Amino acid sequence: MTQYKVPVIPGDGVGPEIIAEGRKVIDAAGEKHGFDVDWIEFPNGADHYLETGELLSEDTLKELSNYKSIYLGSIGDPRVAPGVLEKGILLKARFYFDQYINLRPVKLLDGVWTPLKNKNPKDIDFTVVRENTEDFYIGIGGRAKKGISEEELEVTRSMYSTKFGLDIETDSEEIAYQIGMISKEGTRRVIKYAFDLAMKRNKDKHVASVDKANVLSDIYGFWREQFNDISENYPEIDTDFNYVDAITMWFAKNPEWYDVVVTPNMFGDIITDLGAMIQGGLGLAPGGNINPEGTSMFEPIHGSAPKYKGQDKVNPIATIWAGSMLVDQLGETEASNDILSAIEKSIAENKIKTYDMGGSSKTSEVGDNIARIIREDL
Amino acid sequence: MTQYKVPVIPGDGVGPEIIAEGRKVIDAAGEKHGFDVDWIEFPNGADHYLETGELLSEDTLKELSNYKSIYLGSIGDPRVAPGVLEKGILLKARFYFDQYINLRPVKLLDGVWTPLKNKNPKDIDFTVVRENTEDFYIGIGGRAKKGISEEELEVTRSMYSTKFGLDIETDSEEIAYQIGMISKEGTRRVIKYAFDLAMKRNKDKHVASVDKANVLSDIYGFWREQFNDISENYPEIDTDFNYVDAITMWFAKNPEWYDVVVTPNMFGDIITDLGAMIQGGLGLAPGGNINPEGTSMFEPIHGSAPKYKGQDKVNPIATIWAGSMLVDQLGETEASNDILSAIEKSIAENKIKTYDMGGSSKTSEVGDNIARIIREDL
Ligand SMILES: CC(C)[C@H](C(=O)O)[C@@H](O)C(=O)O
Ligand SMILES: CC(C)[C@H](C(=O)O)[C@@H](O)C(=O)O
Repeated sequence: MTQYKVPVIPGDGVGPEIIAEGRKVIDAAGEKHGFDVDWIEFPNGADHYLETGELLSEDTLKELSNYKSIYLGSIGDPRVAPGVLEKGILLKARFYFDQYINLRPVKLLDGVWTPLKNKNPKDIDFTVVRENTEDFYIGIGGRAKKGISEEELEVTRSMYSTKFGLDIETDSEEIAYQIGMISKEGTRRVIKYAFDLAMKRNKDKHVASVDKANVLSDIYGFWREQFNDISENYPEIDTDFNYVDAITMWFAKNPEWYDVVVTPNMFGDIITDLGAMIQGGLGLAPGGNINPEGTSMFEPIHGSAPKYKGQDKVNPIATIWAGSMLVDQLGETEASNDILSAIEKSIAENKIKTYDMGGSSKTSEVGDNIARIIREDL
Repeated sequence: MTQYKVPVIPGDGVGPEIIAEGRKVIDAAGEKHGFDVDWIEFPNGADHYLETGELLSEDTLKELSNYKSIYLGSIGDPRVAPGVLEKGILLKARFYFDQYINLRPVKLLDGVWTPLKNKNPKDIDFTVVRENTEDFYIGIGGRAKKGISEEELEVTRSMYSTKFGLDIETDSEEIAYQIGMISKEGTRRVIKYAFDLAMKRNKDKHVASVDKANVLSDIYGFWREQFNDISENYPEIDTDFNYVDAITMWFAKNPEWYDVVVTPNMFGDIITDLGAMIQGGLGLAPGGNINPEGTSMFEPIHGSAPKYKGQDKVNPIATIWAGSMLVDQLGETEASNDILSAIEKSIAENKIKTYDMGGSSKTSEVGDNIARIIREDL
């Protein structure tokens, strides 16, 4: 029996509930395919942060770096200011482990409702390869020309109004700025990954690149040059360029055009949420943060949904699907395929489904059913 | 008879064809409502640029600044590198005239097909107020750490491969970067405009703000602060924050949630293309670049569609609708309403429609029909 050690960070909100189902399903797949997972729990998240001040410490990161794959629930809590947990835990791990690929399959499973008219599972089946360590996610920015005091302002205001009859509206010319950066190597490695993936997928051998090179020309002109250069090594692959604004239209109107989509980090964030929606909603959208030579991390792409916490109500399928990607990363391809088949079969049965899919089943019932299918029904 | 002088820039590709229809319809509305437009043609666009090297010169800009509203067709040509015409003409005008509001109604007209299931005109009816002069559109960026020569690289490569058995993949650590900036005043004025608009609209008195303050915290944290501050002056108005990734989902699933949406420039670019698609496609989406105290500019939000140039084939409705916004800006409210009513009536008749709406009418037939309705049928 192969033995794997997998760190698991259930996180905040519904995180623990959905991760429990993911583990249950992976354990069932392990029983069937001859491996056993030793789950190593990490407490990181809002509670832990509020108690100890730790987000994700150097020590924790070093310990996590001993493993090939981390299983992550969800991060985010209303008691903590926006950005703190996301940056301190989720983005921290993506950057620290140099998980330069954020892999997000957009696949409408049979029997799932999509908001788009006339689209079937064969029309919505592509993969977004999102760059995951650069671009506007590097966190560099600041403010300048901070305002003058209220007293000074009063003086200025009355002077302007007496002298020129003008109302001075705001107190300063304060500005805020943000810097994005992409590197040649950082861009090339993710684009190469996308081309290699298109070679392996059985679809159109097509890679679409996303940018806004007509306006953010410095950063995305550079992206486009790297894309062009790499595409020359893949003569079998068709390519095209999509402005980020335009691709949101085509995702809504012609998702069948896409096979592999490669995108800079921020645009990838945006278009994969739209992708999640057309595949049936966030309850069904998994993501992998991958470093092929290092430590990867798998998660549902949704947030922690604090208002549903503890209700055994939300859909665990995104997390279970992320679990399928995780065991694939471990090398357990058959178990990975089984998990995805079991998800599809469970949906097709159309009996056990959570509220977002029009049912009233519990989180745990969905996990139980998928685990049962793996054990008895594949 | 009131006399208006309106500069018109037909531009590239299908620009001249659609602008001809827009002028035709405005002229018909003028006849009916007692005004006459003196159209002042400007040749700016690709041909003019290739012949003379002029994009939009200081002299031309000065001349244009004598007028209240410019009517713009579309800009863009395959003979010119991406970004040159867009930046040199379209963005140039937006910045030069300080057209700080990009107003984009997202409204599904009766009888128009939307890619979304179960959505009717009453569900898709909101306005996006996009900031139009700041953010990542300021055009500041560059590259650093340019690569070493091919010869030097060969030496380095063979050294690494002999000494460490490593393959050096790329020739340098070159990077590209881009800077975005928003100002306090620039942010406040557009947010105020959005709140004032929500006060005037007969809907939910709701303003949704778009940002990504959890990751691009410097720039969009600042945006959020200004939004919060201004919202205090409008106690009648409900507000909420939408991360840009999430709002693409809700546009596809619950567009009925929105009334007025206010957004920084780049996110506005992205979400209004999605908005255009859910209202029936780019053939139906108008935009106004507005400086309430200066020179504004009205345009369809689509591009120049070079492959359809000269075929009398594309949909002129976006341009005609932009014309309705233009005459409203001139103060001709009734004429503006008539133009929009005539568009709606023409679509409802379901006879004269271009290929994108499932018909085979010509561009000019659509303009003729809408002008006829204004003259005879309202
Ligand atoms: C939570 C947030 C920091 C994150 C991101 O922006 O990458 C999320 O939206 C995602 O897509 O995984
Ligand atoms: C053509 C381009 C520069 C422009 C923009 O990005 O603003 C367009 O996409 C738009 O939305 O008007």
